[in-house]
This record gives sequence, C-alpha cells and structure tokens, in this order.
Amino acid sequence: MTRISPVIDQLVDALQVLPGVGPKSALRMALHLLQKDKNSAEILSESIIQAVRDVGKCAKCRTLTEETICYICANSKRDSGIVCVVESSADVVAIESTAEFDGRYYVLHGRLSPIDGVGPEELGLNVFRKWVLEDDVKEVILATNPTVEGEATAYFITEALAGSNIAVSRIAHGVPIGGELGYVDGGTLSHALKGRTSIV
Amino acid sequence: MTRISPVIDQLVDALQVLPGVGPKSALRMALHLLQKDKNSAEILSESIIQAVRDVGKCAKCRTLTEETICYICANSKRDSGIVCVVESSADVVAIESTAEFDGRYYVLHGRLSPIDGVGPEELGLNVFRKWVLEDDVKEVILATNPTVEGEATAYFITEALAGSNIAVSRIAHGVPIGGELGYVDGGTLSHALKGRTSIV
Repeated sequence: MTRISPVIDQLVDALQVLPGVGPKSALRMALHLLQKDKNSAEILSESIIQAVRDVGKCAKCRTLTEETICYICANSKRDSGIVCVVESSADVVAIESTAEFDGRYYVLHGRLSPIDGVGPEELGLNVFRKWVLEDDVKEVILATNPTVEGEATAYFITEALAGSNIAVSRIAHGVPIGGELGYVDGGTLSHALKGRTSIV
Repeated sequence: MTRISPVIDQLVDALQVLPGVGPKSALRMALHLLQKDKNSAEILSESIIQAVRDVGKCAKCRTLTEETICYICANSKRDSGIVCVVESSADVVAIESTAEFDGRYYVLHGRLSPIDGVGPEELGLNVFRKWVLEDDVKEVILATNPTVEGEATAYFITEALAGSNIAVSRIAHGVPIGGELGYVDGGTLSHALKGRTSIV
C-alpha cells in the first residue's frame, strides 16, 4: 500500500474495519471524506460515537437498540405467542423487511461454537429457555443459518425445549425463488427434495 | 429501507456519505460495528475527526497532508524541474504507486466546470502559473482525466503557459495494458491510433 501521511494512513487503516472494505476502497473513502465532504465526515464520526455509546441489547429479545426494550418487543399488537430465533440483528432486519412475520424475535448474537468458546451461556439460551417456558409462548421458529454451527444451535434449542408444550419449527431450506435448479448446489437441492410439500 | 431505531438509522444514513456505500451496505456496516467491533468503531470515529481537524492542503502542491509541506514537496531528492498536474490527491497516490515519476505534483482538487462555478481561481491555477514561471520548472505534464472538463482544463493550462519556455505535455491515452482491442471503446481506440508511436 502506498502510504501518504501518518494521519491519513491511520484513517485508511481504521476504515478497513468496515465489512467489505479493503485497502483500495478505504483509501478512496478517506480521500473522498477529506477532499469533498469534511462536514459529512464530522457527522459520520459523531454518529459512530453516539451509536457506540447509546446502542445496547434489548432487555427482552437482545436485538440492538438504544432503548431498554426494542420497538418490536414494545409493540403490544405483535403476537407474543410466537418467537423467531436468529443469529444476528441483521437477520431481524431481513425478516422484518418481508413484513410476513408478526411475532417476536430472540437474537443470539452468534451461534454455538465451542472452539471459539461460545456456549449456551454466551448466546443467552438459558434466559431464552426460561422466557419461553414462563411466558405464554406457543411456537419457536428456529431461523439460524444453515451452516454446521447454525444447525447445531437449532438442534441444541430443540433439545432444550423437548418435553415442553412448545412447538418448535425450522425455516424451510430449498431452491431460492427466481433461482434455477442448474445453478443451485447439491446440498440445497437435497434439502429441497427432503423438504418437499405435497400439493394435491 | 427498514428503519430500526433513531440512533442506528442515523448511523446508517451517515455511512452512506462514503463512496460506493448504499443503504444495504451501510446497514451491514452499522450492525457490524455495533455487534462485533465497538472498540474499532471508536477508533474509526476518532481517526475521522482527527483527520478532518488536521489534514489540509500542502502549501506548495495542494495535495492532502497534515504537514505544511507534503512529503513529496519536502523531498529534496525529487526533480523540481518537472511538475505533474492532477485533479485529485487520489491521482497522486495512483501515480506514486507506479514509482515511475520522480517530479513534483500540483493538485487541482477539481476540474474547470463553469456550470458548477469552478473557474481557474478555485483550482489555484493563478498560483500554479506563478509558481512554474518563477521556479526553475522545465516541463509540465498534464494528467487531468480524459473527460470533457479534464480536457478543457488541460487546454486552459496549455494556453496559460503559452509563450513561456516550459514544455507542456499530456499523458498518453490509448489501449490499456492487458486490454483487448475488441473490448475497448471507440474513443479510446481513436486516441490510440492518433497517438501512435513509431517503432522503426
């Protein structure tokens, strides 16, 4: 990397913590901020520090929010009998954008991964179990990612709720809408076959 | 766009001042900073504010630097008889990374564009003319971009230096190395033909 000056280099390095930003885009961003948009750069700096200071986890569902209880948990119109378990707040945003789900969420902020020291405690699974057993929760939808760790996490939660009256379901995995079979990997196709739904 | 909470939404908006960052990547960046990397987020915020506060233009060549005189102008080993005129500090970085140029730069921070109120004064062209005429500059290389405004700017500088003993040259435009003729646009090809160099 071409080095310019200590202060600019430091900014270029710092920008690379952003996901998807490498040395080249970081340099472009740094020069853009300094050359054209010092005012927006100040606003960006303040927004970051304010968010870092104020944003924490919802006391109930653990999603990111600056309130004690997030706007989803605080919404009494939503169905409190159904809880969708996801790995991150980004997943909450993704599901919310479909406007198809009207229940609550529980955000794990990770997945079970003993090798990284992430166990049930770190994911708040004990608190979660207590919550769904004590509250009037009827269904838990497991929407962890279809990776090895995501599946293990889903399995762990299923086991933890075994023996209760709570229905536990897993979101469907299969051919994405608009996708073509020829471009879909074998694992997805095998999921799609196993998870077929009858139409007649 | 899905809104999450005022503080996070503000951060998502602020991140979109970065070049190449739209609503989706901004959301991903914001959640990444808040979920995984609060410490780096603080460093990023501080780096931005420090750079905004400290970085200004080199008193001589107008490139971005936190010093009065940038490291290129301050380097007495570089050839002060040759000056390369570029539109932005990013262009300085690009040319420096080739390690092919040993002279000085002059950064316009823009291009002539009367419709946007950018005239010779805003580009520091009066100061530039005085500098090259009074100092012992032998050649001015015009490396403005091959756009309408970039060409107009190059033409303007050529005219402004007419009658002096300074050689004025323009960087070559043609087929990029590794490119194939079939993929190159007509304008570039016509430049490549006009700018052909004899080999025998």
